[in-house]
Amino acid sequence: MLRTLRSGGAMSRGQIANAVGLSRTTLSEIAGDLLRRGAIVVVDTDAERRTGSGRPAERLALDPRSGQFLGVDFGHRRVQVAVADASHEIVAVGASEYPESCPWTERVQRAFGLADDLAAEHDLHFGALQGVGIGVTGPLSAEAPHTTAAPSFREAAVDLAFERRFGTRVLVDNNSRLAGLAEALLGVPPDAQVEDLVFVRLSDGVGGAVVVGGRLVAGRHGLSGELGHVTVDPDGASCRCGKTGCLETVASARAVLTATARRGLDLPDLEAYGAAVDDGEPAALAVAREVGTAVGRVLGTVAMAVDPAEVVIGGSVARVAPPLVAEAARVVATTAFPGSEPPRVRLATLSDDDGALGALAALFHSSPLLENYPQQPRTVTGSAGSPRPPVTTGGTHVGVH
Amino acid sequence: MLRTLRSGGAMSRGQIANAVGLSRTTLSEIAGDLLRRGAIVVVDTDAERRTGSGRPAERLALDPRSGQFLGVDFGHRRVQVAVADASHEIVAVGASEYPESCPWTERVQRAFGLADDLAAEHDLHFGALQGVGIGVTGPLSAEAPHTTAAPSFREAAVDLAFERRFGTRVLVDNNSRLAGLAEALLGVPPDAQVEDLVFVRLSDGVGGAVVVGGRLVAGRHGLSGELGHVTVDPDGASCRCGKTGCLETVASARAVLTATARRGLDLPDLEAYGAAVDDGEPAALAVAREVGTAVGRVLGTVAMAVDPAEVVIGGSVARVAPPLVAEAARVVATTAFPGSEPPRVRLATLSDDDGALGALAALFHSSPLLENYPQQPRTVTGSAGSPRPPVTTGGTHVGVH
Repeated sequence: MLRTLRSGGAMSRGQIANAVGLSRTTLSEIAGDLLRRGAIVVVDTDAERRTGSGRPAERLALDPRSGQFLGVDFGHRRVQVAVADASHEIVAVGASEYPESCPWTERVQRAFGLADDLAAEHDLHFGALQGVGIGVTGPLSAEAPHTTAAPSFREAAVDLAFERRFGTRVLVDNNSRLAGLAEALLGVPPDAQVEDLVFVRLSDGVGGAVVVGGRLVAGRHGLSGELGHVTVDPDGASCRCGKTGCLETVASARAVLTATARRGLDLPDLEAYGAAVDDGEPAALAVAREVGTAVGRVLGTVAMAVDPAEVVIGGSVARVAPPLVAEAARVVATTAFPGSEPPRVRLATLSDDDGALGALAALFHSSPLLENYPQQPRTVTGSAGSPRPPVTTGGTHVGVH
Repeated sequence: MLRTLRSGGAMSRGQIANAVGLSRTTLSEIAGDLLRRGAIVVVDTDAERRTGSGRPAERLALDPRSGQFLGVDFGHRRVQVAVADASHEIVAVGASEYPESCPWTERVQRAFGLADDLAAEHDLHFGALQGVGIGVTGPLSAEAPHTTAAPSFREAAVDLAFERRFGTRVLVDNNSRLAGLAEALLGVPPDAQVEDLVFVRLSDGVGGAVVVGGRLVAGRHGLSGELGHVTVDPDGASCRCGKTGCLETVASARAVLTATARRGLDLPDLEAYGAAVDDGEPAALAVAREVGTAVGRVLGTVAMAVDPAEVVIGGSVARVAPPLVAEAARVVATTAFPGSEPPRVRLATLSDDDGALGALAALFHSSPLLENYPQQPRTVTGSAGSPRPPVTTGGTHVGVH
């Protein structure tokens, strides 16, 4: 019905009933519910166009100003917010950067401010919000390591802050897993979607997701897909997770820049690294190969375990360095059984908004990918809440998807 | 009903109906079907024990001589056969050894001979066989590498030979995957079963299985769980699969004996290696640690991807070398997130008959673990059949489980 209203514009109940093949009675019930929830509005009656007799029929339309779902992705250095309407269409998306040291209370304020900016710019309101999906980096925080007993303090605090601000259900999950979900659901046309997918995201951090038999794998403790914290070099660098030689210490944006500098090529940021790769700088290419090999070995191992149809490599590091993806693909193919068809390895098609889109996808709950996947908003533990914070803005840039 | 007959012995239809809580009518239909299929027999009437009037009621019992399911596991150096009755109880199990060079036609004959020996020894017949489950090593054979287009010639030939011999449905799968299934379903008491499990089997070959969210993972090409062919040392030894440095080149029975010999300790077989480990021989312990580290790194990587509740290490190599399992467990725990609960790592509880039991479990089809798992017998391609072979025996040793 919502899809019909989106494509057909304002329609009477009778017209909608005909279009979607429902009885007038059933349709009126659904319409009543949607009106109460603020997803649709009565725009006018069809009186002026009527030639016959009888009471003029109300015409209904999507409320174009009603943000119904909010997807939020807290990365290490920026928050991304995406807004969807009642028909699940993305109506606005924006990002706000912060330093990696930015405390979580401030990050949450940035997200609130960004949501307000998007609302102002796109003439949206969040009065009828049905849910907020939130991606957070890793299961880890310096203050409170994730344990299996309960969501961490940080997650609980973020959860509660959003619940208080928007008065609606909140779903919190790892942002790379959500990005993998988005890539599986939205990254390719529906007829090209696969049932078995391994996803890794190389960005400020490194994370991933595993889809098996058409379902996003949650894992026993909600720690599945943590490919960034597989040990690739037991004698390697210290990782922020407390371990040594994790894939993240080799394949994150910072690790790539450090390795390139070690080869005598000092670059300010990932864009400069990408340019150096494009220019064929030997140091940049050598690092791309090294990192691609390490990524490919982890992906190859996981691929041997779950035999996916597709391996997807995403994140800013992968996007600026095609030779890295090519090398990872080579290693994955080398790992596959001789004579068998190796999984397709491809660059992610979604960009930095993948986590926010995945958070929305998790909210929409419309995919068989999510069967058996925990969908309940996490229980917020008693004392973890922060007081309702004032809404501030600052330093945001807002764009439309 | 079958379970009731197994525990209660011979009973009349009325007694069974009371015991299982079904109507007489429904029960009589089921009993008729089971009688036709040879799963149960009429043993006598209850006339002599009756004190009242009326027609004496027939008493029904399981046919203790009716082998209803056959599980077969073709290893690299022996075939294992297990027989279950209509109530899914294992009634006989045996093994027959052959050299690794033994051709598949001969291996199949060994299995037939072993089945006949078991039938003779336990006074069983296979006239009412409901299905044969078969595990085979790897997806690979020197003659015909597995491709994704069709089951290999070898699998098709084995499948057809059994179908012709027993005239019943045949299910063929990788034997390590079946062993993993058996370990998940039968390796622990029902109340200790877990939904997420990673299994590796270190034996003449190395294989594995992955259970995610209560389901055995099949994979896109049926190549899931192939942990033995993950590359652990790109500069390592050649593997029979055609690649280099696979886990199997480090952790198989032969690899362990070779590594021990390289350290100056020449041992005739795995039992001798186990004795050397028990005696604290430094060479044997060093190899156990080395192999345990390699196994642990592969398991740790897969565990980071799917976050299992349990990691199970099986096979003869693990069984004779507890320090190997302990070292693998240490590495898996080291790989896990600081602050999170690492998966339990345990030695498999099932023994060499795990593959045959898994083949039976796959046949029984009674577990939610098998939902979404391919259950249809594979289609046998036209010309792959061998002529119906004569039944021979030889070199078998038969035991009861």
